Amino acid sequence: MASAQSLSFNLGKETMQLKSKYKHFSGTTEYYQHDSQVNHAPMNFAVFLPEQIKRKQLPVLYWLSGLTCTEENFMIKAGAQRVAAELGIVIVTMDTSPRNLGIEGEDDSYDFGSGAGFYVNATEQKWSRHYNMYDYVTKELPEIIEAHFNVNNNKSIFGHSMGGHGALMIALKNPGYYQSVSAFSPIVAPSQCLWGQKALGGYLGDDKALWQAYDSCELLKNAEERLPILIDQGTDDEFLQQYLMPEKLQQVCEQYNHPLNLRMQEGYDHSYYFIATFVADHIRYHAEYLNVET
Amino acid sequence: MASAQSLSFNLGKETMQLKSKYKHFSGTTEYYQHDSQVNHAPMNFAVFLPEQIKRKQLPVLYWLSGLTCTEENFMIKAGAQRVAAELGIVIVTMDTSPRNLGIEGEDDSYDFGSGAGFYVNATEQKWSRHYNMYDYVTKELPEIIEAHFNVNNNKSIFGHSMGGHGALMIALKNPGYYQSVSAFSPIVAPSQCLWGQKALGGYLGDDKALWQAYDSCELLKNAEERLPILIDQGTDDEFLQQYLMPEKLQQVCEQYNHPLNLRMQEGYDHSYYFIATFVADHIRYHAEYLNVET
Repeated sequence: MASAQSLSFNLGKETMQLKSKYKHFSGTTEYYQHDSQVNHAPMNFAVFLPEQIKRKQLPVLYWLSGLTCTEENFMIKAGAQRVAAELGIVIVTMDTSPRNLGIEGEDDSYDFGSGAGFYVNATEQKWSRHYNMYDYVTKELPEIIEAHFNVNNNKSIFGHSMGGHGALMIALKNPGYYQSVSAFSPIVAPSQCLWGQKALGGYLGDDKALWQAYDSCELLKNAEERLPILIDQGTDDEFLQQYLMPEKLQQVCEQYNHPLNLRMQEGYDHSYYFIATFVADHIRYHAEYLNVET
Repeated sequence: MASAQSLSFNLGKETMQLKSKYKHFSGTTEYYQHDSQVNHAPMNFAVFLPEQIKRKQLPVLYWLSGLTCTEENFMIKAGAQRVAAELGIVIVTMDTSPRNLGIEGEDDSYDFGSGAGFYVNATEQKWSRHYNMYDYVTKELPEIIEAHFNVNNNKSIFGHSMGGHGALMIALKNPGYYQSVSAFSPIVAPSQCLWGQKALGGYLGDDKALWQAYDSCELLKNAEERLPILIDQGTDDEFLQQYLMPEKLQQVCEQYNHPLNLRMQEGYDHSYYFIATFVADHIRYHAEYLNVET
């Protein structure tokens, strides 16, 4: 796999359009649109820039959202900026797919197509030109962030549900690239649940060997790096038994001696009320790996 | 004016319908609908119940939202529950009007009718049966909260924009009823701005003497109680000059020796990004008056 640094998009500032900007905890939450070269479509992302960025380079924490979400949900609902402002961490969120492409069926369901990119590079002809969210998150977007904002090379990644899958999978596939990884209610074994089977089948076709390259439970078996994993999972999550199945990850982690801190949170569900409750824990966890000076 | 206690609605639990409930910062954020007796229509409210309520009676902090908002906006965007959970304060929010009543024109504009009750009791015939948000907030809703949840008699009130107007006006009209009051970007002189003139004219008719009974700058001149006022106002708020005009309140407060802490917050706008930034300050401020044991 090409490293993010080897792939240059040469994006000038003129290709990025600032859509809105809000002062927030002394820093700013900003929304951008740009023409994605890997997705061949406009993409939206958001960034929280702590006030400290005026004086020094800051590390970046990437958030990957779940099904249907845009770059906005986490920024307005999680309450993450309070802690990121305190610790001096840039937060980046992105839309969960390109949208309004005119691909037949792209808006037919909440769990495939628009809002459901699943963080893979599609190989099926219908989707392969525009649905390359893996390259977008791991290569194009970091390059944009590093080109346009005063950040250092330290980066970590976390996410929720489909985005929890994305964060774990991406960290496992890119040893050394992220300082730390965590997830809320992640889909840990997409090959083994209906959401994942629909998405991986749709974007990658029927060859399940291709699916395994995006399945955290499979990737863990050959992980080059023992990057510790932090997961929070609500016990009252309606998707727990059929879709999320963290016990499958736990089993592989035990078998392969991979460090996992799986916290089952009593009574919490799948919502942003749950994420908001524990997001500060996650940001402080990542701060330890991001060499934040406090 | 009748005190809240003198007006009994005899609401049984059967009249309140729990619409949804989320575990949140060890407590719960809950959404209810009930048949309002003062508005003769279904009304929605939300309540955050800290975990401590299982063991002791807690004080209540009422939040009044701005134009177009429902009971949900503050609950999902402000990040208030984190601090309320820590301090043991119940938070109550309510919709900004009844909705879907079939009144001609009720949905024609964002600043009148649905989502824009302005916290007054309408006297104009068209609106007077259903638009009695003043009685709803000061009488019916507190009675419901006190009947159904383990709260004590200490209550405070705050709000944003139209809801900042509501909070200040209601506190001024009810001396001794609220322990403290604060506001974000409040409409302090509705008689003197277009939003207020449209709403007060529409709900109360052309007699400006009636308007003054809901105008904080007027009410302050005869305030029986010198309850201190805390206000946060962003300097980059697009509505500052024409609609909010905090300098008018400041002038009256100086003239009548009413304690006011008006904090002009450099660079902040009218949004929930602003509210989220300073909401913890406000909740800690109210906690001092609500006799919270920490």
